[in-house]
Amino acid sequence: MPAAFDDTDLLCVNTIRTLALDAVEQAKSGHPGLPMGCAPLAHVLFSRHLRFNPADPAWPGRDRFVLSAGHGCMLLYSMLHLTGYDLPLSELKRFRQWGSLTPGHPEYGHTVGVETTTGPLGQGAGTAIGMAVAGKHLEAIYGPEAGFRVFALVSDGDLMEGVSGEASSLAGHLELDNLVFFYDDNGVSIDGDTTLAFTEDRAARYAAYGWNTTTVLDGNDLAELDAAISAAAEHRGSPSFVSVKTIIGFGSSDAGTSRAHSDARGPEQQAQTKRTLGFDPDKFFVVPDAVPERYAEAAVRGAALEERWQAELDAHPQAAELRRMHAGDTPAIELERFSVGDPIATRAASGKLIAQIEGQVPELVGGSADLTPSNNTRPPGWEDFQPATRRGRYLRFGVREHAMTTIVNGLALSYLRPYGGTFFNFMDYAKPAVRLAALMNIPSIWVYTHDSVGLGEDGPTHQPVEQLATLRATPNVAVFRPADANETVEGWRLALARRSPTALVLTRQALPILDPDRYPVADAARGGYVLEGDDDPQVILIATGSEVHVAMGARTILGERGIRSRVVSLPCWELFEEQPESYRTAVLPPEIDARVTVEAAATVGWERYAGLRGAVVGLDRFGASAPGATVLAELGFTPERVDEAADRVLAAAADRV
Amino acid sequence: MPAAFDDTDLLCVNTIRTLALDAVEQAKSGHPGLPMGCAPLAHVLFSRHLRFNPADPAWPGRDRFVLSAGHGCMLLYSMLHLTGYDLPLSELKRFRQWGSLTPGHPEYGHTVGVETTTGPLGQGAGTAIGMAVAGKHLEAIYGPEAGFRVFALVSDGDLMEGVSGEASSLAGHLELDNLVFFYDDNGVSIDGDTTLAFTEDRAARYAAYGWNTTTVLDGNDLAELDAAISAAAEHRGSPSFVSVKTIIGFGSSDAGTSRAHSDARGPEQQAQTKRTLGFDPDKFFVVPDAVPERYAEAAVRGAALEERWQAELDAHPQAAELRRMHAGDTPAIELERFSVGDPIATRAASGKLIAQIEGQVPELVGGSADLTPSNNTRPPGWEDFQPATRRGRYLRFGVREHAMTTIVNGLALSYLRPYGGTFFNFMDYAKPAVRLAALMNIPSIWVYTHDSVGLGEDGPTHQPVEQLATLRATPNVAVFRPADANETVEGWRLALARRSPTALVLTRQALPILDPDRYPVADAARGGYVLEGDDDPQVILIATGSEVHVAMGARTILGERGIRSRVVSLPCWELFEEQPESYRTAVLPPEIDARVTVEAAATVGWERYAGLRGAVVGLDRFGASAPGATVLAELGFTPERVDEAADRVLAAAADRV
Repeated sequence: MPAAFDDTDLLCVNTIRTLALDAVEQAKSGHPGLPMGCAPLAHVLFSRHLRFNPADPAWPGRDRFVLSAGHGCMLLYSMLHLTGYDLPLSELKRFRQWGSLTPGHPEYGHTVGVETTTGPLGQGAGTAIGMAVAGKHLEAIYGPEAGFRVFALVSDGDLMEGVSGEASSLAGHLELDNLVFFYDDNGVSIDGDTTLAFTEDRAARYAAYGWNTTTVLDGNDLAELDAAISAAAEHRGSPSFVSVKTIIGFGSSDAGTSRAHSDARGPEQQAQTKRTLGFDPDKFFVVPDAVPERYAEAAVRGAALEERWQAELDAHPQAAELRRMHAGDTPAIELERFSVGDPIATRAASGKLIAQIEGQVPELVGGSADLTPSNNTRPPGWEDFQPATRRGRYLRFGVREHAMTTIVNGLALSYLRPYGGTFFNFMDYAKPAVRLAALMNIPSIWVYTHDSVGLGEDGPTHQPVEQLATLRATPNVAVFRPADANETVEGWRLALARRSPTALVLTRQALPILDPDRYPVADAARGGYVLEGDDDPQVILIATGSEVHVAMGARTILGERGIRSRVVSLPCWELFEEQPESYRTAVLPPEIDARVTVEAAATVGWERYAGLRGAVVGLDRFGASAPGATVLAELGFTPERVDEAADRVLAAAADRV
Repeated sequence: MPAAFDDTDLLCVNTIRTLALDAVEQAKSGHPGLPMGCAPLAHVLFSRHLRFNPADPAWPGRDRFVLSAGHGCMLLYSMLHLTGYDLPLSELKRFRQWGSLTPGHPEYGHTVGVETTTGPLGQGAGTAIGMAVAGKHLEAIYGPEAGFRVFALVSDGDLMEGVSGEASSLAGHLELDNLVFFYDDNGVSIDGDTTLAFTEDRAARYAAYGWNTTTVLDGNDLAELDAAISAAAEHRGSPSFVSVKTIIGFGSSDAGTSRAHSDARGPEQQAQTKRTLGFDPDKFFVVPDAVPERYAEAAVRGAALEERWQAELDAHPQAAELRRMHAGDTPAIELERFSVGDPIATRAASGKLIAQIEGQVPELVGGSADLTPSNNTRPPGWEDFQPATRRGRYLRFGVREHAMTTIVNGLALSYLRPYGGTFFNFMDYAKPAVRLAALMNIPSIWVYTHDSVGLGEDGPTHQPVEQLATLRATPNVAVFRPADANETVEGWRLALARRSPTALVLTRQALPILDPDRYPVADAARGGYVLEGDDDPQVILIATGSEVHVAMGARTILGERGIRSRVVSLPCWELFEEQPESYRTAVLPPEIDARVTVEAAATVGWERYAGLRGAVVGLDRFGASAPGATVLAELGFTPERVDEAADRVLAAAADRV
C-alpha cells in the first residue's frame, strides 16, 4: 500500500508550476502551459517511480525520461533542479539566455540529465522508442542489469506528427513493454482548441497499434496518477499509452485555453497565478525547503538502486564488455581491402563490409526501411530483433524512414552502434531526425543507397538530386560518397570512428574497383586526395562517387590530346576541409583556376571547389526513368562532356593570360 | 440491380495482368505484383464506377483516381490505354525507357490521365485528401458542378508512412465523404511478409481517425468489389477505407510472396503465368478486342456525363469564373507598397499582403500547421474550412507539416491557389512533398516564417541553418527571402504569377522598411539588384533577407573609411539566374573579385557569388537559444564583422595585383 499523498506533495507540484511561470516571465518568452498542467504527473513520476541517481546522471541502469514536448522544458529543468541534478537555481533564472544551461528546448549534451534533444514535435516519441528497443535488446543479451525502462511525455502535437505514428506502430509490433507514453491530453494547441483539427480517437489509435491504453481522468489527482503509472510500468506484453486529462496553464486565469500555451502574460497574471497556487506574488523562484527534501527521498532510493546495480555488474561475466559499451568505446576494426576484380556496386561493398564488422563490434545493430535486399544492410547469419528474438541485431523498420532514423538516434544514445538504410532520396522523409542527430552530435550511421540518377528505371521520384547539398549544409554530418569498394572501406572506418553522424552515400550500379596497389585509396580517409595525374596539371578534375570514373575517362581523353590533368577524388567534403591547409593546397593548388567538378547531383555548393572560373558539371533538373547508364549519359555524365568542359575552362584561362 | 459480371470482365482483368507482366519482362525492371493483384479492383472501378472521359482527360467534373502506390504504375498505364486515353500500346512496350510516356512511376504532366506524381510512398494518399478538400470546397461555393470525387489506391507502404496517417487523421476530422481509399491488403512488402514489421490493425486505426471502414474478403470477387465500391462511394458523413484482401502477383507461381513485388522473373515464369491466366505464352502485349469494347461503355457514359455537366456549367451564374479557374488563369493582382514607418517583420508584411490578395483571387485558400498566430497566414474575416463550413477558405492543418504540404499539392492540382505556413525549419518535415510539387511543377506556395537564428529564444531545434541550401538545390523551386516589407510584395507577386512552386522565407523579427522612393525595391522582381552603392565599387556586399540591413550597415562603415562599396540584395537566386547576362554582370561585375556575401544560414552554395577570392559570412554550426538580436550578434551577423571580412578580401585582392 503506497503512502498517501500529503500537503508536501501539493507544495512540490505548485513549486514546479511557479518555477515555470517565473522563468517564462523573467525571459519574457517560453511555454508555461505544459509545466503547469503536467506538474502533478512529473511530481508523482519523479518522486515515486523513476529510477535515477542525480549523483551519477549517466548510470546506465536508470530509467529514461523523455520530454517529447520539448517546449515544456521548464518542467524538466525544474525536476532536474529539484531532484538534485547539477542544475542550480541561478540557471533557471537565466532561462533562454545566451550561454545558459536552460535553453528554449532541452538539449542533449548541454544540460545534465537531458536524455535527448527535443522540440521538433514527434522526435522524442520516436527516440524514446529507440531507447526502449535498446533496453530490450541489451537485456536479452546481457541480462537485467543491461536493460532499462523508458517513460515519455507526449503532447497533442507529438501525436499529430506522422513520425510518432510510424514509430508507435513499430513499438506495438515489437511489444516493447519497457515503454510508457504519458499523453498530455489538454485539449489545446497553438491555433486553439484541438477540436479545430484533431478529433480522432487517440487511445483507439494506440490500441490499434497494439498498445495497452488507460486514462487518467483527473490529471491533478495524485493518487489516480500514481495508480496509473504503476499499472502501466507493470504491464507486460506491450507498451502502454496513458492518456492524462490535464488543464494547460493550471492556476492561471488563462488555464485551459491556447493563451496559456506560450509566452509571458505579464506581472499581473503572474501575481494572480501565484496567489491562486498559494505562493507569495512578490517573491520569485521560490523553492520551499520541504520540496527538495521530498525529492531527496527518491534520490536516496536511486543511489541505493545504483549501488546494487554496480555490485551486480561487477559480478557479471561480461562486465568489461558492458563497461566498454557504456563508455562508448567502439572497438578498433580491421577491414580487408578489395582486390581488383569484377566491378561491384558500393552498396554491395558496404554489405560485405558490414559482414566483416559485425563480429568485431558486438554493439553494431542495424536495419532498413523495408529495402533490405536493395540496401545490402543485413549480414549473413543475423537474426531479426522481434518479440520472440530480442537478441537479434537486425531491425525490420517497415516503410518508415523517419521512425527508423529516430529509433537509430535512440539506439545511438543507448550504448549501441546503429545504422539504418534506405534509398538516398528518401533521406528527405527522415530529415528532421537526421538534423537532431547532427545537433546532438551522436554517431548515428545512415546507409543511403541508390545515390543518383544512375539508379535508373525507377525514375525521378526515386532519384536524388538535392540531397547531397542538404546534408553538406547540415552541420556536424560527414557525408561520404565513395568512388569504389575500397573508398567504401574508408567510409565505414570513418563512420565507426566518429562520434558524430555519418552518411554513407552508395551506388546501386556496379563500379570498377580502384586497385589499391596502384591508387592511394587509403587517402580517402582524408576526405579528398589526388587519385591520379600530373604534378603540374593544366586542369584539375574533381569528382565524387561514380563520377570519379567519368573524370578518369576524361583524363584519358585529355591525355590523348596532350593536356595534363589531375583527378581528385573528394568523397567527403567535411573531412577534407578538416585537413591542414598545406594538404588541401597540395591537392587543389589555389593558383590553378582551370577546374572541372563532376557529380551527378545539384550543382549548389560546387563553386567552393570550381571557383567562378571553373566548370561545374552537375544536375539542375530532375532525372528520368530509363536504364541507369542511359540516364547518366543523356544527362551529360560522360568523359566526353567533362572533356568539353575542361576545354572551355582552359580556353577561358588562356584568354585571361 | 447491376448487370452480372461475365467472361469478358474476367478477360479484362487478365489482360491488365498480362500487360503488366509483359511490360516488366520487356523492361527487365518494374513491379508486376500490384497490377496483377489489383487488376480486379481496377477493372470494376473503371468499368462501373469511375466518371471519366478519355476524350477530355481534363474534364473538371471527372472523378480522380490516384495510384498512391506508384510503383504499380503498369496498372494505371494499362487502364489508361484500355479505356481509350491517348496512351498507345507502343508506349506500354517502351515501359521505363528514355523518353517514353510510361516512366517507372506515374508522372503528372508527362502522361495523360495521371492526376498526380506518385512513387514516394504516402504522397498520393495525402495529395488525394487535398483533392477531396478542393472538391468539397468548390462544391460548397459553386454548387455540385464544381465538385468531384476522389478514389485512391494505397498499399502497405503508403499506410506505414507517417504522412498518410497525418493526412488521414485530418480527412476524418474534415468528414470528406467524397473520398475513398482502397487498401491493397496483400500481406507483403519488399522485406517479406508484413508480419515482419506491420501488424497493427489498420482498419481499427482508420476507424479511430473517424473513417467508415469495410473489407473485401476476396479481392478477386468482382461482385464483392462492386458492392463495396458502391457502398463506399455512397457513404455520407466520412471518408471510406475499403480493405481489399488481394494476392500479390496473382497468376504467377510467386503469387502471395515478396518475390512477386518487383523485378522481372524471366521468360519461364512469364510463360507459366500467361498460361495460368489463359493467355498464349508466345504472344506479348495482347489486348483482345472485347476488352477495349467493354471499357468503351464506360467512356461513352463518361462523355454523356460530361455533356450534361458542360450544359449545366453553361447555365451557371459564375460560369466565367469557374472556367477561368479551371484554365488556371490566376487574376492579376494589385498590391500596395509599404511606405516608410515602423519596422515590420516580413511575416507580418506577408500577412497584410494576403489580406490584400484574398479579395482579388477568390481561389486563394491557405492555412498553417498550427502556427497561425506566428505565420500570419489568416486574413481577417476568413472562415475555417470545417465540416459545417465548407465555404471557409482557411485550413487548420494541425501540427502536420507533411500532410499540409501534400494537401496543398492536391489543392494546387484542383484549380485552387493554395498556401501553407510553418516555421522554416519544419520545412524539413514536409520535404518529400515539397519535392513532389517541384517535380510536378505545380504552383504550391509555402509561407515559411522564423527564417533564421534571428528567431531567438526557441533555440537551435527551431532555427533553420541548412534549409535555404536544400531548397536552392531543389529544381524548379523559387526561394524568395525578402529584405523588407516591400521586397515581400514582390515575393507574393512572384508566387501568384508562377506556375511552379514558391517558398517565401520570412523573418520573425521586425526589419526596417526600405523606402520605395529611395531604393529600387521593385527590382526585387528580378531576383537580385543593386540596392545602393557606387558605380565603381571596390567591394560588393551581397545579402538576402534580414542580412541586407547588416550589409547596409557595413557599407556605412566602409564609406566612413573611404572605401567604395555596393550592396546587392539577392532575394531569389533562381529569378536572378534567369535574367539576361548583361543584367547579371551589371549587378555583379565579373572583374570585381572582392565580394562578401552575408546570410544567416549555411555557407554551402554562396561561393557561387563570392567566388574563391571572396568571403562568405554565414553559419556552419547550429544556432543557440537567446534573444534573437543577441544570437545574430554572437554568431557574427553585424556590420562590424562584415566590414572586417571586406577588409580581408580587399587586402587579398591588393596582394594579387
